[in-house]
Amino acid sequence: MLEIGKNAVNEALEAGANIEKLCVQKDLRSDALSRIVKKARERGVKIIFTDKAWLDKNAGGAAHQGVIAVSSEYKYYDLEEIVSAARAAGKQMTILLLDGVEDPHNLGAIIRVADCAGVDAVVVPKHRGCGVTDAVSKTSAGAVQYVKVAKVTNINDTVRYLREEGFTVFATDMDGKSMYSADLTGDIAIIIGGEGNGVHALTKKLADGIIAIPQFGRVNSLNASVAAGVVVYEAVRQREKHD
Amino acid sequence: MLEIGKNAVNEALEAGANIEKLCVQKDLRSDALSRIVKKARERGVKIIFTDKAWLDKNAGGAAHQGVIAVSSEYKYYDLEEIVSAARAAGKQMTILLLDGVEDPHNLGAIIRVADCAGVDAVVVPKHRGCGVTDAVSKTSAGAVQYVKVAKVTNINDTVRYLREEGFTVFATDMDGKSMYSADLTGDIAIIIGGEGNGVHALTKKLADGIIAIPQFGRVNSLNASVAAGVVVYEAVRQREKHD
Repeated sequence: MLEIGKNAVNEALEAGANIEKLCVQKDLRSDALSRIVKKARERGVKIIFTDKAWLDKNAGGAAHQGVIAVSSEYKYYDLEEIVSAARAAGKQMTILLLDGVEDPHNLGAIIRVADCAGVDAVVVPKHRGCGVTDAVSKTSAGAVQYVKVAKVTNINDTVRYLREEGFTVFATDMDGKSMYSADLTGDIAIIIGGEGNGVHALTKKLADGIIAIPQFGRVNSLNASVAAGVVVYEAVRQREKHD
Repeated sequence: MLEIGKNAVNEALEAGANIEKLCVQKDLRSDALSRIVKKARERGVKIIFTDKAWLDKNAGGAAHQGVIAVSSEYKYYDLEEIVSAARAAGKQMTILLLDGVEDPHNLGAIIRVADCAGVDAVVVPKHRGCGVTDAVSKTSAGAVQYVKVAKVTNINDTVRYLREEGFTVFATDMDGKSMYSADLTGDIAIIIGGEGNGVHALTKKLADGIIAIPQFGRVNSLNASVAAGVVVYEAVRQREKHD
């Protein structure tokens, strides 16, 4: 996995990510780059000074700003372990289930939402949608280092499992009832559908309820990461008991 | 301006956009394409059948699905006209001011938020940030046809103008007070900063208040379009008086 650009590399270093090597543009000087190199040295990370062409090629079009960190593949978390640990800690849980989110920019932005809002886990399915790739890591602005992403074989089984564990599972869909009238406190899981198709029919059926973001427009289509942010923050509000 | 792909072209046709010509891949057949061609014929739009290579080149990497519509440049709205018209209609207004949002994907997603949430205008500055380009149009999923975007020379002057007009202007910033404790009813304007720099210092100073999205994470950085969605929907909720 690659961390591309100063912010992403810095976050990876701060988070103690398993970085194999740091590749730095040899003819570029800046305070920010020097700080990154110093930090990497302190952490015993191997540093390679290379030319811009190599970085350009490996960044695949992303703005590398003279630095790329090569780290091990993303290690997915185990959902059951996350749930047990949070339960043991007496924590009120929020879990995001992604059903067909394919755009890595959306997954990256959703991981940022999860970090900001204190979401306990983001669940991605093995076959429907996007996993944690370099592009996801880059657009997550470093949040991928802190958010627990679990990969599951079948999202429907995950819905069944979470309901057995006492979670209230909500699918998001335009046909649902307004999220403002739903009770989003307690242990909840929110299913976000992919752009285009939304949440699959069977998955919706398995959920405890279907909630909608009220819409007043003509196109009425929110980007998946925006929808995730809006619903998750309504849950945050209800948990904080503001009115 | 180009509308690329079936959904965007369809929305442009539905909205009565000023389409100069419709370019259709000549060796591609589908019901959706046929419906688009029929609709364009009914509206008297010039149709050109072309080859995939031409479409690929002009789509610039976007998925064109065999169809591109070429329309006139985006015609920006006049903010004062929008405000007068809404006031005459007795409408409670919400206006989004973008201060340095540079990524066209973010602007496109913000325009989708504006459509969904019934925002009256999106204001972009002439120099700080992105205007309505083809990439914005494409990522707006057609919402650019319905949302009123105004371009202003100086966002600070716009803040002053809106305050004179009786709007409460909120800048969003991590240092602000929680948006849940702010009163977002009445005529309001919300300033969203660009990724990286946020709202400029002087602009923040000119606002009536600074509001924050509560954050519980480590990176605590939301994508600009997600932040816009979360704040605008908190305003929607307060206007609907849910608790």
